[in-house]
Formats: sequence, C-alpha cells, structure tokens
Amino acid sequence: MKIEENNARIIIEGVTPQVDDGRFPAKAVVGDTVTVEADIYADGHDTLAARLLYRRQEQNKWTESPMKPLVNDRWRGSFTADKTGNYVFNITARVDRFQSWLSDFKKRVEAGQPDLEVYLQTAAGLIAEAGRRASGADGQKMAKWANMLKSEATTTQKIKLATGVEVGRLMDRYADRRRAVTFDRELVVAVDRAKAGFGAWYEMFPRSASATPGQHGTFRDCEDRLPYIAGMGFDVLYFPPIHPIGRTCRKGKNNSVNCDANDPGTPWAIGGKEGGHKAIHPRLGTLEDFRHLMDTAGKYGMEIALDIAFQCSPDHPYVKEHPEWFLWRPDGTVQYAENPPKKYQDIYPFNFGTERPKELWEELKSIVTYWAQQGVRIFRVDNPHTKPFPFWEWLISGVKREYPDVIFLSEAFTRPKVMYHLAKLGFTQSYTYFTWRNGKRDLTEYLTELTQTGLRDFFRPNFWTNTPDILHAYLQAGGRAAFMARLVLAATLTSSYGIYGPAYELMESTPREPGSEEYLNSEKYELKHWDIDRPDSLREFITRVNRIRRENPALQHNRNLWFNVTDNEQLLCYSKHTDDLSSLIMVVVNLDPHRTQSGVVNVPIEPWGFDTEKPYQLDDLLADTRYTWRGSWNYVELNPAVSPAHIFHIVNLAPAPPR
Amino acid sequence: MKIEENNARIIIEGVTPQVDDGRFPAKAVVGDTVTVEADIYADGHDTLAARLLYRRQEQNKWTESPMKPLVNDRWRGSFTADKTGNYVFNITARVDRFQSWLSDFKKRVEAGQPDLEVYLQTAAGLIAEAGRRASGADGQKMAKWANMLKSEATTTQKIKLATGVEVGRLMDRYADRRRAVTFDRELVVAVDRAKAGFGAWYEMFPRSASATPGQHGTFRDCEDRLPYIAGMGFDVLYFPPIHPIGRTCRKGKNNSVNCDANDPGTPWAIGGKEGGHKAIHPRLGTLEDFRHLMDTAGKYGMEIALDIAFQCSPDHPYVKEHPEWFLWRPDGTVQYAENPPKKYQDIYPFNFGTERPKELWEELKSIVTYWAQQGVRIFRVDNPHTKPFPFWEWLISGVKREYPDVIFLSEAFTRPKVMYHLAKLGFTQSYTYFTWRNGKRDLTEYLTELTQTGLRDFFRPNFWTNTPDILHAYLQAGGRAAFMARLVLAATLTSSYGIYGPAYELMESTPREPGSEEYLNSEKYELKHWDIDRPDSLREFITRVNRIRRENPALQHNRNLWFNVTDNEQLLCYSKHTDDLSSLIMVVVNLDPHRTQSGVVNVPIEPWGFDTEKPYQLDDLLADTRYTWRGSWNYVELNPAVSPAHIFHIVNLAPAPPR
Repeated sequence: MKIEENNARIIIEGVTPQVDDGRFPAKAVVGDTVTVEADIYADGHDTLAARLLYRRQEQNKWTESPMKPLVNDRWRGSFTADKTGNYVFNITARVDRFQSWLSDFKKRVEAGQPDLEVYLQTAAGLIAEAGRRASGADGQKMAKWANMLKSEATTTQKIKLATGVEVGRLMDRYADRRRAVTFDRELVVAVDRAKAGFGAWYEMFPRSASATPGQHGTFRDCEDRLPYIAGMGFDVLYFPPIHPIGRTCRKGKNNSVNCDANDPGTPWAIGGKEGGHKAIHPRLGTLEDFRHLMDTAGKYGMEIALDIAFQCSPDHPYVKEHPEWFLWRPDGTVQYAENPPKKYQDIYPFNFGTERPKELWEELKSIVTYWAQQGVRIFRVDNPHTKPFPFWEWLISGVKREYPDVIFLSEAFTRPKVMYHLAKLGFTQSYTYFTWRNGKRDLTEYLTELTQTGLRDFFRPNFWTNTPDILHAYLQAGGRAAFMARLVLAATLTSSYGIYGPAYELMESTPREPGSEEYLNSEKYELKHWDIDRPDSLREFITRVNRIRRENPALQHNRNLWFNVTDNEQLLCYSKHTDDLSSLIMVVVNLDPHRTQSGVVNVPIEPWGFDTEKPYQLDDLLADTRYTWRGSWNYVELNPAVSPAHIFHIVNLAPAPPR
Repeated sequence: MKIEENNARIIIEGVTPQVDDGRFPAKAVVGDTVTVEADIYADGHDTLAARLLYRRQEQNKWTESPMKPLVNDRWRGSFTADKTGNYVFNITARVDRFQSWLSDFKKRVEAGQPDLEVYLQTAAGLIAEAGRRASGADGQKMAKWANMLKSEATTTQKIKLATGVEVGRLMDRYADRRRAVTFDRELVVAVDRAKAGFGAWYEMFPRSASATPGQHGTFRDCEDRLPYIAGMGFDVLYFPPIHPIGRTCRKGKNNSVNCDANDPGTPWAIGGKEGGHKAIHPRLGTLEDFRHLMDTAGKYGMEIALDIAFQCSPDHPYVKEHPEWFLWRPDGTVQYAENPPKKYQDIYPFNFGTERPKELWEELKSIVTYWAQQGVRIFRVDNPHTKPFPFWEWLISGVKREYPDVIFLSEAFTRPKVMYHLAKLGFTQSYTYFTWRNGKRDLTEYLTELTQTGLRDFFRPNFWTNTPDILHAYLQAGGRAAFMARLVLAATLTSSYGIYGPAYELMESTPREPGSEEYLNSEKYELKHWDIDRPDSLREFITRVNRIRRENPALQHNRNLWFNVTDNEQLLCYSKHTDDLSSLIMVVVNLDPHRTQSGVVNVPIEPWGFDTEKPYQLDDLLADTRYTWRGSWNYVELNPAVSPAHIFHIVNLAPAPPR
C-alpha cells in the first residue's frame, strides 16, 4: 500500500506578518514574540501537520517549532525576536498519514465498530514504514510495534499500543517529510532595539534654553535643562536642526518676509558661510560641546535625536559647490520651495531629478553617517515624502548596515498611502494624524486602523500632542483639561509619543491668528524664554503619566489596544493588557474639556476571564484612588476641572484557581 | 532643464480584480464591464496619469483606456468583456510633467501671483520638448506655441494659450512615456458565457418522470416533462447520474443496507455489468434518446446538466480493469467510502494516491469530454473536495481548451477555504451554505462576504433551496410560507439558483426522522411518482419569480446587492439596481413563516439620487399592487399566509432633469 501525496494538494496562504507579498520586511523589537499565522489546508479530510521555520538572516540553519490549528483552517506559531537584525521565517506543512489514520480510528473505536483488525494492520504498515526511517533503538522499537500489531495479541492490546502517546511521538519524529510543502517565499522580520517600539520624546529648541531672557541658548544651557526633562520621564530629546542658518531671505518674527539684524531665522533654512549640514550653529557651541551634551544626556537615560532636513538656505555651501543639485529656472535663478501660491524663498530644495543623482545621494547619506559617527542614533526626518522613495530605501538600508541601532522617525504629513509606503521603505517610526483626531469616532477608527490591521506589521505610530508647526484648535480652546486629555491619549493609545515643550507643559495656546494652527510668536522664528518653573505647569502631571507608562508593560505595546463601549459620545474608554493579565490597564478620557461627563462603560471582563459575579479592583494611577467594581457595566464621571481621565490598573480579586 | 523621473517613484499596488496575486484568473461573463482599480501614487506632489491596458490573451496588441482618480490615491478604469475566453490587463502610470506644471500654475493665476513669466517659460520648455516627439502638423503647432510663450505677447495671452484645452490635449498625446511604470504582473480575467452568471436550475431524477406510478421513468418521459419545467422559467435541467447502477451492496429504501430485487439503488453507485461512466442506465433509454432529449430541451430554451461523480460501485468495470486505481486494504478487499464510523460499502472511491495517476487522470477527463462530445455543456461535479486540487485545475483547463463554453458547478459542502480554492482552480459556480443561512444576521453576513469582498471576483454562488440530500428544518417546519420565502431569497439574492423538484414545488417536507435533513422515502433510493398538477403546487409562484428575474436585469448580477436597514429582526430588506437605475429592485422578506411581521425599512433613496421630498412608486411584482412612498423610512407589513415577500420595482417619479 502506498499513498501518494501530491505536493500541490496542500495550500499555504494568507501568511502574516507579510508586507506587500514579502517585498518589505515586517517590523518587531527585541523581546517581541513574533506571531506567525497562515491558512493551511488540503483537499479531502487528511490531518495536516505544520511547522514554523525561522532563523537569523545571516545564519543558514532553521529552527523549527510546531504550529497549531486555530479555527477555520487558520494555524499559528511563534518565535522570539531576541536580538536586533533580520529574522527570516517560512512555513512547511505535510499530510500526517498516521494522525489521519488515528483520527479516523478513534472514531471507530468510540462508535464500537467491530471489524477493527484490518485498520490495525494499516497502522502496522505505517509504523513499519516509518521505522525504516528511524535508526538504532527507535527503529527496533517501531519494528517491534509493527510486529505486535500483526501478531495474535488481543485487539484491546493492539488498540492501546496504536493509540498510545509513545507511538504518536515517534511517528511524528520519523514522519515522511519529503512531500512536505513549503510556502513559496521566505519572509523577513526586521528587529529593532526596544526604543523603536517604546519611548517618550521631548522636542525643544536648544537656542531657547538659556536661563537669561533674550540670550541665545547653547548646548551647555541644554545640559542644565536635562534634569528637568529627564525628571519628567522623557527618554528622547529631539532638537530641530542645529546647523548654521542662512541669511538670504531670512524670515523674521511670525514668518515675516522682513527680518531685522537680530532675528535668528528658522533652523530649517540650513547652511551659511559657517557651513552646512555637518556644521554646528556657532552660537550653540562646538562639536565637542555637542558630544558632551550627548554624554550627559546618556547619564540621565536620554538620547539626543537630530533633525534631518534635506534642504538648503540660499547661503548653503552646496549651492555654489554643486549648482547641479538644484533646479535652475529659465530666468537663471534657483527654484526655491513653493506650495503655490505660497513661497519659501529662504529654502532651496534639492533637485533629485539632477543629472548627477549618485553624488547627491551619497553626500546626503554622508550627512547621516557623519552624525552617527558622532554618536547620534535617532533621526527625525523632515518631509521625507518630498524626496524619492528609492532614495530612502537606499539611504536607510545603507546607514543601518553600518549602524543597525539607528532609528528614523518619518515626519511626513501627507496622504495615508504615501506615509505608509515610507514606513515600508524602512522608516522606524512615523508621525501620524493623531493631532487632528479629537473626537471619539475619529480616534476609534484611526487607532483601529493603526493597531488592528496589517499596518501594525510595518507602520509604528509616534503620537505628538503638538509640534512647532501644529497647535490644534482643541488645545487653543480647551484649556488645561485639553492639554491633560491629549497627553493621556498620546501617552496611552500608542507606545511612542512626543510633546513639543516647554510650550506643551506651559500650555501655550495662542495661535498666530484665529483659524491658524501656527503658534503666535513661534519659536521657529525667534528665541523664546520659557518660565519652566511656573506653578501651573503640567510638569508633575506629565511626570506621573510617564511613570505609569514605564511601570505598566501593557502600555508599551500597540497591538493589544481594545476599545470598550461607553454610552456617552464624550467618554472614550480603552484597555490594554499583557498576555498574562499581570499588567491590565483601562483608560477613560473625557473628551469634553469644558463639562463634566458621565456614563457607563463596558468592561470586557468576560474576554479577560473574570468571574462575572465577583468583584475586581481598579486603582486610578492618576489620582491614587481605588474602586471596586462588579460586572461589565459600570458608572464613570469625569470632571475636567479635576481630571479629564482615569488610568486604571485593574486586578481580578477572584482569579480562577490554576488547573 | 531636465527632470529625471525615477521609475521606482511611482507605486502601483492593491490592483483589483486580482486572485492570489494573479496566480488565478478573476471571472466575468460576456457583456460585463470589468472594473479595474488600483492604488497609484508617487512621492512628492506631482500629478500622475494612469492607463488601463487590456487585450484578449491570444492577441499581442494592447488597447489603452485612461484611468481616473477617485479618492485617497485610488484609481479606476474599465473595459468590456465582449467575448468568452481570457482577457489580460495591466496598468501603466507616469508622472505628468505638464499637468503638474499646469496644476501649480492655475493656483498661481488664481492667487494673482505677479511674476508669472518665469513659469510660462518653463511651460515653453515643456511644450518645445514634447513637440520634438510630435511629427508633422502637431509638431509645428507645438513649436509655434513654445515660441509664442517666449515672445513679447502679453502675459494674459500666454496664460490663455498655456492653460487651454488644445495644448493639454497635445501635451498628453506626446507625453514622454518612456519613464512610465507598469505593474509588475499581467492579470487575467476569464470570461464565461452568460449562463455562467445567470441561470435558474431545476434538478430532477429522470427515473421518476414516468406518468405511470411505479414505472421506471425514461428520457422520453423527461421530454414530456419539459414544457412543465420550461414553463416555470428554468433554463438548466440537471440530472443525477444517468449511468448503470451497481448491485453489490446496493442500498434499499431510506438508505437501508437491505435491498430487495426491485430497489433501483442510488444513481451515485455508478457502474455495473452494463457499463460505467460513459454508459447510460438501460432503463432510462439509449444514447440516441438522450441526444433527442437534449435537442428537445434546447427548443424549450433549456440545457441538460449532467452529474460528474468520480466514484464507482463495486461492479464498475474499472474495478476489474484497473485495480491499481483503488485502495486495497491489508485484508485484500477494496477500501469503500467511509466517514467514520459511517460506511458506504456500495461506493468505491478512486485512490488518487495510485502509483499510476496519469492513466487515472486521463480516463476521468475522458468521461467529461465524452459527454461534451454528445453535446453536454454543463456539469455538476459531485464532492470535488475529496479529489486532489491539482487534478481539478488540470481537468477543467484541459476540457475548456476544447470546449470553452463548458460550465462546472462545484458541489463541495466543506470548509470555506477549500470551497473557495476549488473556485480559484476553475470551477465556474459553486454550491454554498445558503441552505443553512436562515436568519437575518446570517444571511446578511454571508451575502456580504460573497458579494462585497474579493470572493466575488472568482467565487460564483449558486443558491439551492434544497437538494436530494438537504431538507432544512426551516422547510420542515415552516410550511408553504417557508418554501415561498426561501425561493424568493435564492432567486433574488444571487443570480444563479436552483431547486430540487418536484419535491420543492410540491413542498415535500417530511424528514426521515426528527432532526434529520434527509427526506423520508428519499428519491435517492427509490422511484417516486410526483403529482405535479396538485392544485397547491408552487408552480405558478415559481413561474412568476423566474419571470421577474428575466425581466429585471438588476437581479442578474450579484455585486450590486445592498442590504437595507429594517427595525424588525424578521424582516430582511435588500436592493439591487443597474448602474442607470432603469432596473431598480427592492425585496422585503418576512423570515418568520408563522406570523405577520411589520416594521419600517430604510430605502436608500439618497444614494440612488432621489429627491428626499418627492414621491416614488413601488410596484410589487409578486402581487401586482402599487404603492407610492416618500422619504427613506416606510412601513411594511407581511402576512406569511398571504405572501412572505414583496419584490418591488421602484420608479423615481421626480428624477432630476438631465444636465
């Protein structure tokens, strides 16, 4: 007897994680359990066996682990991403002839079918055949079993043997794997260091760090500010460009085309006679000062992130040295940046359509590697969507070959598909539409898209409450409660978030004019002096929220986000937990900064496995108060004048006894 | 000036229709408009132009048609499938430099920007360059335009020229297409004849067609039955296997293992001393009788569909001639069909694991081509999921090469992914779970899956109200109203449907035992005599429903299905319409066969473009009654004792005047 198993009988499809059919890697961070799923099925009724194969990309040898069937022909397996770098995985499946036999045979035994001997002889044949693939003791054992099944032993004895654990174990070990089917492509998971997945960012203008009003801040001043920032719990300190600033067409206060001699210009108008993208603005300090600042920041548990803005002021050395990198207009002038009819005469974009793209690309990459050589490992990339897609894929992969721990944050505020494509090309994290998602439905839909669809495999959101460019109307009008609510949302909806300070903690909320999202007297165009010790500062509140994030692993991931039903359109409720429920957080936010809102929220205690009759305990980590609830539906009331949010840590007071 | 457009800047992805990345063709029928969509975008802000390319597979030359942007970087184009056979399509996109310039320039003009001359010079350059690709008069015209833009003409004159229609037209015609990006694979649409998409099937046992009770029916008797069946509006007449039936282990009445000499056996126990799959049961008639029947059916507008059941009775000639095609057990007997612990000793499955699969495959295919040679063009395939996937792909493609108009209906009642895979492999239509979807939520979810997801591109449902194997509890308990409701659902939810008669129109509803879905005294095991002239027959009702289907093109498609909200869980409401709304059907079904149900239904008049203030007319095509409604929410009441359904044809009494 011989059963041929044609390979094409087994289908493996719908494999996740998989980005564009494997054209791009999926993303994970060190320590993640990478869950792999696939639809695996065959014609007929045979029992299948499937295995997950994985290895580090630089190694040849696969590690194998079994996959388990879920429902509806979906299978699941997993591996741990224990180091940075690329992992490769694949899936193999085969018809399990012995398990197919066993599954049918058990039904026959249960039904009391009388003529079992002939089926046991089939098993004897399968065991003998597998035994010939085994060596030594195993082979002898299997031959003995096959003989026993053919012997005069009682049917009861034979059934016991053939359905026993040990036969099953060896039949799996020596199964015929030659006809196993392997998925038609190997898939890659790019594993980043932990900070790629979990971090709290603080953006500040170093030139505004001076303790003396009106004085240009320096890197030394920034060092003095480190205890303040680290004390709030931030671990990434991001600076706008620190390079010399052009003078030609320099913008004055509030983006005026007229500037006076004291206006410092926008840091994004990069380059002057003092140098370009590899130089430091002389008034900030020296390269040595910068390195010293990085060292000191490190001692406070913080990293410095730099801004990569690939554009030039008219005074940038590149303009003279490489005129071929810019677009020349028919009138013999260089094409400055425009968003018709708006004009930015102080900024020259690079012309990526240049006839000498190779030199341009190499030079731009050398800017990143220059700062990486100085120790910088985090880059916030300005407007990447206005540069060619292939350029970024080439640059990021090249830099990461040399510096695998580099993190790139994409600042692309553009159409969703373009933002997502940049993430596929290699950007570690991305700015998002969070700033403009203020209502319950908008937040729920957007977060569901980010955390519960295939996006989560490659697009890592970094939620910013504000930026030097974006002061949302919600903050302009909502007062202190709005600032608190948006901080809680940014810090608990996603694992990476950021604020632009001290504007945020000092609740700066005046727009340049009504309807504008620009700050009045924006720091982009002038030095600011911030009174960080103001008694109404949100410093303490932010400190607490960041501590809650650090102390609760549930808040350090995104795909565990789950929205809970509430009966009030102003109450947003969601929960996150670790697999073992040891860290179980539920957040309720009153989205209305002006009025007390109350309602009932649905606590998903059944999916959590809580006893629906027994009490559970909620500690509000923001307020240090404790509640005891019972059942799914519970009442919540939030007065924004006191606190616009609860962040509950939940404990099941009646866990089921371990089995 | 020269702008390089790197190809990789343009992304084309998410192309539909596309089945498993193009591994399988999508499906359409002759006359369909095939709508192709894709996400097409690039970095930056350039304007793109995209074209759909399509051709018949056997031709080399592409036809091109423009694609239009929808929202969110989604583009759409279409072509008409005007003949059976395979069409190939692809998509090409390019940066449209002139349109990019024009889009920016129009914003500048609108904003009253003063310095427009330099931008007009850019246009002059673009036009001159494109003009060099043009020949003859066009080339001269474009050179003249370029010169005019460089001349001393007024800016107003130049603006008028550069933004004019004619310049745009020639700039498109002579655009530089060398850097256009083409999607990385050509995709195929398999176009079947119309009946693959729209048909009403009637299953009957020819042996029960005799006018004389107790007498074995013949093909001649079937001819006498044709006016009755065609009169009800069916266009496919499907017969269970018409071949000789085995005697060994033949089953008696109600699937008894004991049979007496007069029991005819089940037609699916194929093969006896009189022959096998290419022979005709002698009591049905001769091959000539069968051909005559097919001819006569054709005159009534009907086709005969045969059953392809690849299995044998123990008496099938193959068992002796090709013992290697069967699985032999250790005791020297052939493995009969089993579903442990159930046994079917009268059926031997083929062993596709045979060491000589090629001969088996060829012989089985020759069965299909044999009947195709006799003129049969529709095959209902029994249990295809128990034969190898690759076998079906090979068989169907082989048969269709010779007989491109053949239709295969897959009778696979198994797990969803297996059913869907068989459809990918080439089955024209498929049986479904419809019989077991009786509640509002189940029907809504299932139909949404079938008609509003990627499934619709390759899986064509054929909804059966009943089969000789399936008499659902809903019909057992629901009486006449249940039979009427299920007929309306099957006939209007999908464009292909079938009934097993005369059991259905005569409302046969007694199960073999309580809890069973088998018919008592099933026709599978005995001859039946049906009194088709019984006055309570559903014949007239079915006739009317089939006429409604033929007269209303909206009911001849599936992807236009839309569910409408009702406030009663027993009222299911849905609508279908042609693109031009000339055929606009709304169906309301009372799913409760026992009680009158009433409620309000939401008529989607806004998406239909009706004036929300004006009246519209509803003709109930089942009852010949007319209603006039206004607004979205309207009251419906359905008494199942009268009619469990409305099938409304809707006319907008106040259409907007054509613009």
